[in-house]
Amino acid sequence: MARIAVVAGDGIGTEVTAEARKVIEAVLPDTEFDDYDLGARFYNRTKEVLPQAIEDELAAHDAILLGAIGDPSVPPGVLERGLLLKLRFDFDQYVNLRPSRLWPGTTSPLSGIKPGEIDMVVVREGTEGLYVGAGGVLHKNTPAEIATEESLNTRHGVERVIRDAFGRAQRRERRHLTLVHKTNVLTHAGGLWARTFAAVAAEFPDVTTEYQHIDAASMFLVSNPQRYDVVVTDNLFGDILTDIAAAVTGGIGMAASGSVNPERKYPSTFEPVHGSAPDIAGQGIADPAAAILSASLLLEHLGHTDEARRVSEAVAAEVASRTPGASLRTAEVGDRVAATAAA
Amino acid sequence: MARIAVVAGDGIGTEVTAEARKVIEAVLPDTEFDDYDLGARFYNRTKEVLPQAIEDELAAHDAILLGAIGDPSVPPGVLERGLLLKLRFDFDQYVNLRPSRLWPGTTSPLSGIKPGEIDMVVVREGTEGLYVGAGGVLHKNTPAEIATEESLNTRHGVERVIRDAFGRAQRRERRHLTLVHKTNVLTHAGGLWARTFAAVAAEFPDVTTEYQHIDAASMFLVSNPQRYDVVVTDNLFGDILTDIAAAVTGGIGMAASGSVNPERKYPSTFEPVHGSAPDIAGQGIADPAAAILSASLLLEHLGHTDEARRVSEAVAAEVASRTPGASLRTAEVGDRVAATAAA
Ligand SMILES: CC(C)[C@H](C(=O)O)[C@@H](O)C(=O)O
Ligand SMILES: CC(C)[C@H](C(=O)O)[C@@H](O)C(=O)O
Repeated sequence: MARIAVVAGDGIGTEVTAEARKVIEAVLPDTEFDDYDLGARFYNRTKEVLPQAIEDELAAHDAILLGAIGDPSVPPGVLERGLLLKLRFDFDQYVNLRPSRLWPGTTSPLSGIKPGEIDMVVVREGTEGLYVGAGGVLHKNTPAEIATEESLNTRHGVERVIRDAFGRAQRRERRHLTLVHKTNVLTHAGGLWARTFAAVAAEFPDVTTEYQHIDAASMFLVSNPQRYDVVVTDNLFGDILTDIAAAVTGGIGMAASGSVNPERKYPSTFEPVHGSAPDIAGQGIADPAAAILSASLLLEHLGHTDEARRVSEAVAAEVASRTPGASLRTAEVGDRVAATAAA
Repeated sequence: MARIAVVAGDGIGTEVTAEARKVIEAVLPDTEFDDYDLGARFYNRTKEVLPQAIEDELAAHDAILLGAIGDPSVPPGVLERGLLLKLRFDFDQYVNLRPSRLWPGTTSPLSGIKPGEIDMVVVREGTEGLYVGAGGVLHKNTPAEIATEESLNTRHGVERVIRDAFGRAQRRERRHLTLVHKTNVLTHAGGLWARTFAAVAAEFPDVTTEYQHIDAASMFLVSNPQRYDVVVTDNLFGDILTDIAAAVTGGIGMAASGSVNPERKYPSTFEPVHGSAPDIAGQGIADPAAAILSASLLLEHLGHTDEARRVSEAVAAEVASRTPGASLRTAEVGDRVAATAAA
């Protein structure tokens, strides 16, 4: 029996997570859910972001289903660093998984690209790079102020995520893996990534490989997104690339993500890429598709491959049946997807 | 009389730069040009990238007209760090200027966007951030290897580029400036950028402002590029954003850039964003439009506003008259633009 911690969070997070949970319950009825009230509301009430006792409880779960965290009332960085990134680091979620597909029924802003033509996964490193928070500020608020940010990269951290990406590429039809970095400027970290990539590639002779600079990759994702199969990259470049990938597949409405500890030593977190969207919160009109697709990634991670497939197919059917521009009700989408996936 | 150093460089760099020079000669006949043979060929012959004596000579010019640098025979980083970035740093070219327009006669890969609807300038910081080369590698080629890259940001450096961007925004019709950073994760550097932006904004009450995270901006550049007027951002984010901006305006064929020292204490460098394109080099089929538009930025920087406008209008007319898909001859394009601009 799977034990899932639910961190629905803020804004539309609570609404879409309710539907993701509904769908998991429909395909895996004996799942146990424990709710955790974290995020902007919790922070504003308690001035705490993630008490140690709660983190310990989260650690005892098989996975975390997360909605969206954040509200304009909280200064930038507090919840991101204190909750989202803290979980990625403390739970060693080094594979940040972000599939992008142009689903039937959705439209790319790029002309001439048809559903099915974009089908890629970005494997973003999740525990290193510029996200470690190393850096500081001197002489704050004076003309002499300086601020630093340090990107830390280890062979250990780079190698394991690259190996994971090769494995994922090998299990896909096209078996193609693109490394994205900026080796011509970030020669220290870029060198480590490039040499490690070449070394691990020798273990996967059936995967074709390619290297692109982040600026070129950002351009090609717009001019020729069909060329990508699996992409592996560092934490910050992955953050940017996955948002471009979401944009060319019609926006973040369908963008799911998992922050994964592949060994399952710690729980992995699954969440839609979209934010808490305070502007439409509370109206029951947020699209839960990305949250439900994130639930599908969760099911797959826990080994429920068949249930995962049924859920993602049910979302695909739901989206394909939509009338462009028609409004939707969050709960109705969840009901329909749950019914289809359970059938 | 303007003295221009010409660094035509490698591959198609030499071909397109010849046309840019031709056009400058047509509108400003008494310009003096001095050629410098630098780039991959020079490096492979001499094992030197930029001898001090040559850099000193470059420093004595009003501006540098650069083609493209690079060839697969040279390891990544050598020419970039040793020549392109060295000039930006040594000549204090802190304003890296990258206009993007969807010109009549060109097509965006985005559906439903018409020429004229995208018209933006990215003001990218050019002398700080992750480009400074601070960092290193320990225990190379062992399992214990680590690699670091450090982003260095000063109030001095951030403030001057932000003030420049506000000035440019103020001189444009829409008077809108967007700051792009990643304040929710890079809290140290992001804080410095955000606070400096707010302080300088007080000097420009007629410019409206906005802040976006780099990931969100990368997405909006695809989903809604019309919303941007002037964007100011750091060195690395600017590198990425300008390639996305180039992509949504139809590729790098029209993407011009200037690495500018606004005080003209040192020469500024003007170059097309595209590379040396070894695959099509030597055939006389490279499009010199971006190189000629870079020459227009050069003329403007040197105060030849009227000549600059005539050149960019001549390029616009040339491009508008093209038959989509038709092949072109590099020299013929240069001839036509030179004739139009001189008339
Ligand atoms: C909210 C923020 C910390 C986060 C990130 O930058 O990783 C988000 O953009 C994401 O992509 O999950
Ligand atoms: C070649 C490289 C060093 C350079 C950069 O990263 O700045 C290029 O991409 C650019 O945008 O001018």
